[in-house]
Amino acid sequence: MKTLLQKKIDMKTKPLGALGQLEDLALKVGLIQNSLEPELKNPTMVIFAADHGIAADGEVNPFPQEVTWQMVYNFLSGGAAINVFARQNGMAVKVVDAGVKHDFEPHPDLIDAKIAPGTKNYLHEPAMTEAQCEVAIEAGQKMIETLHSGGCNVVGFGEMGIGNTSSAALIMSALMELPISECVGSGTGLDAKGVAKKAEVLERVIQKHQVPSDDPLKVLQTYGGFEIAMICGAMLKAAELQMVILNDGFIVTSALLVASRMREEVLDSCVFCHTSNERGHQKMLDYFEAKPLLGLGLRLGEGTGAALAYPLVEAAVHFLNEMASFESAGVSGEG
Amino acid sequence: MKTLLQKKIDMKTKPLGALGQLEDLALKVGLIQNSLEPELKNPTMVIFAADHGIAADGEVNPFPQEVTWQMVYNFLSGGAAINVFARQNGMAVKVVDAGVKHDFEPHPDLIDAKIAPGTKNYLHEPAMTEAQCEVAIEAGQKMIETLHSGGCNVVGFGEMGIGNTSSAALIMSALMELPISECVGSGTGLDAKGVAKKAEVLERVIQKHQVPSDDPLKVLQTYGGFEIAMICGAMLKAAELQMVILNDGFIVTSALLVASRMREEVLDSCVFCHTSNERGHQKMLDYFEAKPLLGLGLRLGEGTGAALAYPLVEAAVHFLNEMASFESAGVSGEG
Repeated sequence: MKTLLQKKIDMKTKPLGALGQLEDLALKVGLIQNSLEPELKNPTMVIFAADHGIAADGEVNPFPQEVTWQMVYNFLSGGAAINVFARQNGMAVKVVDAGVKHDFEPHPDLIDAKIAPGTKNYLHEPAMTEAQCEVAIEAGQKMIETLHSGGCNVVGFGEMGIGNTSSAALIMSALMELPISECVGSGTGLDAKGVAKKAEVLERVIQKHQVPSDDPLKVLQTYGGFEIAMICGAMLKAAELQMVILNDGFIVTSALLVASRMREEVLDSCVFCHTSNERGHQKMLDYFEAKPLLGLGLRLGEGTGAALAYPLVEAAVHFLNEMASFESAGVSGEG
Repeated sequence: MKTLLQKKIDMKTKPLGALGQLEDLALKVGLIQNSLEPELKNPTMVIFAADHGIAADGEVNPFPQEVTWQMVYNFLSGGAAINVFARQNGMAVKVVDAGVKHDFEPHPDLIDAKIAPGTKNYLHEPAMTEAQCEVAIEAGQKMIETLHSGGCNVVGFGEMGIGNTSSAALIMSALMELPISECVGSGTGLDAKGVAKKAEVLERVIQKHQVPSDDPLKVLQTYGGFEIAMICGAMLKAAELQMVILNDGFIVTSALLVASRMREEVLDSCVFCHTSNERGHQKMLDYFEAKPLLGLGLRLGEGTGAALAYPLVEAAVHFLNEMASFESAGVSGEG
């Protein structure tokens, strides 16, 4: 299939390789779907929201914790950045309450999968129990099964959770075996002093738990958020179902870090959509040897990078399916 | 207006600056249109095609010259990469015969503005006469006036012309006062030996004409293609009419180099869409201190980078117009 796909790409009316990364992307999507004529169907952004025990005291986050649930309402009423970009690009938006500290009324776009109203504070105890972590992973998997049976074959991941850059930094530090100071960043807007304090707080967390780097589940359970655990499960299932995964920024990529330690093949289904301005993200991407589609200096989360990159994924599929070949167009090849 | 636009951007439900380059872009489009609620109307890609005297002998180009007219037919029948991407992103495509060495039948999407069937070979004489250069610039201006009166306010520029990376390299070398060896690249696919030969041929051209670097019109007339001269005129008019200009790759940017020497304000209307893989392009962009939206390693021309980046321009306008503010969404600000 790889040879056939590459041949099809090379016969298009353009110099060899002239569409750059889009050619790699067309090849990737073709391989994921095992098809010379891949199709993208019912693209969906799933935004997982949850609260974090560490965020209650505001030590690591400039925005107050209630912003998590307030933003869930913003997602549901269509006013957030992710809504704007998904709407523009023809993607559905589903919002998941993975563990927000708020009771929501039912809403057609809200999936209630609340594990608990926020994780525990890992300064004192693991963020979740083993059982909660498993339930979260399974919930993510089930959501993807439902999406898939509804005809969706391309899914973008987003998240919302005040404090969750701290979880992502801890997961990164543990799994990539890096000092926490190389993993923390400004999140929603800490200054240098705030970042230093965040690193100091998180260093205490690491010293307390000493989670071995070869136990991704334990890392996830100790440091994770419910949204990260659910994304991890969702990614594993999406790869299994030959769906295209649109990877987003720092937090979503921390879920991918865990997922790829559980099953490396998940990476073959992943499109790296953008490089976030959150400091640790570039290092995560280097770790995966990923060459993301966009580098716009975003640091918003919500899946915005995935939604913004989606037209490029469509473009890759469209040129593969719709562009003329030298032969069909009657254009001369290289002399 | 700038202050008001920035304030509007800052009140959106996101951390300050979290949408990175999209925020600069929203500001730019707002300033071009002098509006807090800019709109993008009837986006159009205009592809200028022309032949080049230098290309007849194949010394600087791996593809034969007839590919120019063959590709024009490919554009008109909708099979080229630019057609695929423009179609996907809701952009009209107009093709301009600026000086192709072929007689075309009339076609609703083809604008006949042929100056001559190809330029002269600048190895022996200037590519065009002064009069031809003026006519080409005026023709580009008129086309934009027509587009604008049809309701278009955002225009992407593309080109096709076997041999035109040589024109662009010569223009770059003259106006940026760089040795030609720093301006030439592989074009549609020359190897290192081919690039060295191209540089050697073009060095002879420079020695022959010795055009002063402070005479952009003379540079254009001596080295340009008809498509480059028309794009230059079109850009000047588009800026004058407060249209958003979608700049593309190496050749289109060489037209911008000339245009910006004639009227610097044209740059304020320009969105730098992508960094091409053609070697000189990065240096041109650095010269403009531009930070393009995409860096996908494209080197196809046709305006493909502009068409691929267009959804990001839309995204910038959409977030500015559609995203909720902290106040309207009832979301708490920074603590």
